[in-house]
Amino acid sequence: MSSETRVTAGLLVIGDEILSGRTKDVNIGAVADFCTDLGIDLTEVRVISDDMDAIVEALNALRARYTYVFTTGGIGPTHDDITADAVARAFGVALPINAQARAMLEARWQQTGTEVNEARLRMARIPEGADLIVNSVSAAPGFRIGNVHVMAGVPVIMRAMLEALAPTLRGGRKVQSVTVKAAVGEGTLGGPLAALQAEFPDVKMGSYPQMGRDRVMTELVLRSADESRLALAADRVRTVVMAAHEKAGIAPPDAE
Amino acid sequence: MSSETRVTAGLLVIGDEILSGRTKDVNIGAVADFCTDLGIDLTEVRVISDDMDAIVEALNALRARYTYVFTTGGIGPTHDDITADAVARAFGVALPINAQARAMLEARWQQTGTEVNEARLRMARIPEGADLIVNSVSAAPGFRIGNVHVMAGVPVIMRAMLEALAPTLRGGRKVQSVTVKAAVGEGTLGGPLAALQAEFPDVKMGSYPQMGRDRVMTELVLRSADESRLALAADRVRTVVMAAHEKAGIAPPDAE
Repeated sequence: MSSETRVTAGLLVIGDEILSGRTKDVNIGAVADFCTDLGIDLTEVRVISDDMDAIVEALNALRARYTYVFTTGGIGPTHDDITADAVARAFGVALPINAQARAMLEARWQQTGTEVNEARLRMARIPEGADLIVNSVSAAPGFRIGNVHVMAGVPVIMRAMLEALAPTLRGGRKVQSVTVKAAVGEGTLGGPLAALQAEFPDVKMGSYPQMGRDRVMTELVLRSADESRLALAADRVRTVVMAAHEKAGIAPPDAE
Repeated sequence: MSSETRVTAGLLVIGDEILSGRTKDVNIGAVADFCTDLGIDLTEVRVISDDMDAIVEALNALRARYTYVFTTGGIGPTHDDITADAVARAFGVALPINAQARAMLEARWQQTGTEVNEARLRMARIPEGADLIVNSVSAAPGFRIGNVHVMAGVPVIMRAMLEALAPTLRGGRKVQSVTVKAAVGEGTLGGPLAALQAEFPDVKMGSYPQMGRDRVMTELVLRSADESRLALAADRVRTVVMAAHEKAGIAPPDAE
């Protein structure tokens, strides 16, 4: 795949609650699925705490390296929500109250009879030069500045923001995948699979052991942006798996 | 907390299958819980692909920065299992077949009638100078070299390796937590909570919104290694929450 068609992303998950184990993250998997669907290669994820220096450092590392950066968490109204501050610092811009964000929030607060106060208005602070990411669930917007997309940590809001973002992102050449199941262990397939991987550098071959109830299973997953090469490689892998089954004298699992 | 009692950790999750979304990670949460139980401050997590340069770079960054580094994934028998190679490269040591690891694996293979081959023997390659992490589930060991602990990616094996490691790790001063529930939103509590956080720098206060079915809830989580300061701060937070409830004319949620 040429560099023209390869689109990469880094994800920054911000929040002490993930690192303490108190909250179990589900956003990594959702962003991973989202990127794969768009043909974007999610290359790295970092989880860090609500710490200014840590956020700025990670943001600068990721935004220099990948086509897109996504962040989740830390854009609420409380003192530990410092993601907007960190993004403004990383980009060297001011963090004023954004008129459009304030209007959206105040309209929602008026509906719900919610008092406007300083803490709530924190959510209208948007780095200068950023575009809002308006979403259907929460009136508090995310924002995009440069290649960085700042989203909420609450999963349902994060997913709504991803949906809002999708039309603005450039997708890569879509990667197709084929799964071949084997009723033998990884150790049996490792040798011939390594030889096939060397022969097909443009088809990424992954091997995933599964602990079945009473027999070992292996799933071999092949990925490539080139459909014909993928099909060719998959045929070769199936041949390897069939030979291993025959040698072990076992029936193959159901084809997929 | 003094630097003597603060014990930190970084976690490196290695695997294309997490970044593609094909496998949803559960090891981050398990390692986070494990560290919290031992009083170890999990400070950063990175998820990266099965790529030699990426693994070496991340390993070197994390091992220089934290007391302990844990890795999950990439120690199986197939060509995409390159974690041991990357660790050996990061430490500048050789990666020979380890006699003890080989003996353990061969004993298991003899029991199960499994053929010894080159792919399977990859799992006995251990960086020179490393200690094995023997576990109860799989005969393939993890290993520890310097401050780096290399574990399997399969969750049940990873957890068994963590249990095996626990007695060898130095725990920090254990952090206690108190949760205060509020039936008002974060925006209402943000101002007074920020003032309390400034007054109690030794008690970390986190605020977590919850979307209830018909009313907004907020959980305030206070953490500190100093129990008396924690209790004092929790009382002050409860006072703030009660005042907010009274002002809003709503009954407080059940105490915890």
